[in-house]
Amino acid sequence: MKVSDIGEFGLIERIRKSTRARDKNIIIGIGDDAAAIKAPGHKYILLTTDTLVEGVHFDLKYFNFFELGWKLMAVNLSDIAAMGGKPEYALVTLGLPKNTKVSDIDSFYSGIKALGKKHDVKVIGGDIVNSPKSLFFTMDVFGTAGKVIRRSGAGIGDVIAAIENFGSSSAGLTALKRYGRKALSLKPCAFNSRSHLMPLPMVDEGRRIAKYATSMMDNSDGLARCLIEICKESKVGAKVYLGKIPLAKGANLKDALDGGEDYNLVFTLSRNKIRSIKNCRIIGEITSGKRIYLIGSNGRKSTLKDKGYEQI
Amino acid sequence: MKVSDIGEFGLIERIRKSTRARDKNIIIGIGDDAAAIKAPGHKYILLTTDTLVEGVHFDLKYFNFFELGWKLMAVNLSDIAAMGGKPEYALVTLGLPKNTKVSDIDSFYSGIKALGKKHDVKVIGGDIVNSPKSLFFTMDVFGTAGKVIRRSGAGIGDVIAAIENFGSSSAGLTALKRYGRKALSLKPCAFNSRSHLMPLPMVDEGRRIAKYATSMMDNSDGLARCLIEICKESKVGAKVYLGKIPLAKGANLKDALDGGEDYNLVFTLSRNKIRSIKNCRIIGEITSGKRIYLIGSNGRKSTLKDKGYEQI
Repeated sequence: MKVSDIGEFGLIERIRKSTRARDKNIIIGIGDDAAAIKAPGHKYILLTTDTLVEGVHFDLKYFNFFELGWKLMAVNLSDIAAMGGKPEYALVTLGLPKNTKVSDIDSFYSGIKALGKKHDVKVIGGDIVNSPKSLFFTMDVFGTAGKVIRRSGAGIGDVIAAIENFGSSSAGLTALKRYGRKALSLKPCAFNSRSHLMPLPMVDEGRRIAKYATSMMDNSDGLARCLIEICKESKVGAKVYLGKIPLAKGANLKDALDGGEDYNLVFTLSRNKIRSIKNCRIIGEITSGKRIYLIGSNGRKSTLKDKGYEQI
Repeated sequence: MKVSDIGEFGLIERIRKSTRARDKNIIIGIGDDAAAIKAPGHKYILLTTDTLVEGVHFDLKYFNFFELGWKLMAVNLSDIAAMGGKPEYALVTLGLPKNTKVSDIDSFYSGIKALGKKHDVKVIGGDIVNSPKSLFFTMDVFGTAGKVIRRSGAGIGDVIAAIENFGSSSAGLTALKRYGRKALSLKPCAFNSRSHLMPLPMVDEGRRIAKYATSMMDNSDGLARCLIEICKESKVGAKVYLGKIPLAKGANLKDALDGGEDYNLVFTLSRNKIRSIKNCRIIGEITSGKRIYLIGSNGRKSTLKDKGYEQI
């Protein structure tokens, strides 16, 4: 059996089962956006890691190194945001072919620092390794939280919500693949292309939402994947109104459901808390059962199948 | 300018200079075995990461996946050991070609868990990414310490010491390259080959040594690199007696100085503390100046040049 036969999420589930650890300080282990451990002083420590591999997560035809550094930090900060946490420190691993230009690494760190500065996140270590066949970058982020929001807390009757649009990054990627960096100066796709290259993690928003949310996850692997994971982990079903999903200009439903990488936050909350969150857009509700129904504007019902972005 | 022109340590220095952060809680940033931040309750939090890349750090001709998992944890735990810390939690990143066998990943995690169990370290998260061109594994370890030992604390007059032999892993690698896994059943090289595949990080020893040491580092990149780094960071020189370096059976001085990967701890301490550390073997002493002199058994003096293992 190959890893491609069971997929990324199948492999995660297998590893989760086999490594289950007994430790009262592990609040959240394998299978959420970040791990959480109990720290002294009624706080939680969050740990997360994310990797970008050349040819899989980025292509140097349309990414520059500044953007790569920015994006590496964005995807990691988004994992902390999805827990309701505050990112604090980062480690950076560079997997580099020997002929990588030093000036490119300088630009890469400039990108990391530019986004790090916005959120007061500092690089305190890492590793540099020779990787002759492909460029890759890994970041580990250490964060803290007073309260953590899991994927597993959605309750029957909760609404499913988001505060930003979906599909921008996916539509941008399509444009970048078609037009290269020219996409950045073409009016209809410039904004979406920029979203793909330099996404903005919703760190401050995540902490505000965490006050009210019962579950939360970022859409790195698509809105469909969020719905599947939240329902699976919370042991509930859902109804989602396709016409209510806020789409970015130039993006379609497929971009929103399958595309991911907007680093938008998808969350659930009790209906009476909706007004506590500014710009809260309801896209559906949590139901009993296990099924996730997608309801079209014409009232047609379909069942959401496991189509989220799986890498393996 | 390519990264190969300035080398791994040149690149680290460059990144260290450009990312220097002002934060009173960062006790140790870029440039030591692990980073240290101040935590509530008079403790320090240690963070470290290390990566193994196929064809660079391991070859599947002589490594099996159980050993790879074990080694990935060993190299990371050794970084915590070198700070005098206690490793606690780990994140694991898998960079996998799609055709990787699930059973190999199972073995890999068995190796991780086997060594993790010895030191009570639990895997609490990670990332899985597609990496079509090469297999790589990254681990991040979170540890704690009541006191941290840097590379920079060596004082003039301190002795340079170790408690284990050097060169075993390097001699083992030579045998594995020559004989493949047959090396494991050939009497003269079996022990050294095993040391290369499944090194034992000196976690308990590191914590004991930390009570007395003024500086410490693991020999992942060779004893020569330890001497160079400790002297550079402490702004001192050294005299090292080549005849006093404890060599593993079957290993030579070059294995010890340049080979690395024994995950042996090299440390300095005040002469009057020598008896406090069991099996403490003195190999030299810290001097004023900047030079590191290697003194042969015949009294011949040479200067240590920068020959430690650099990956880039």
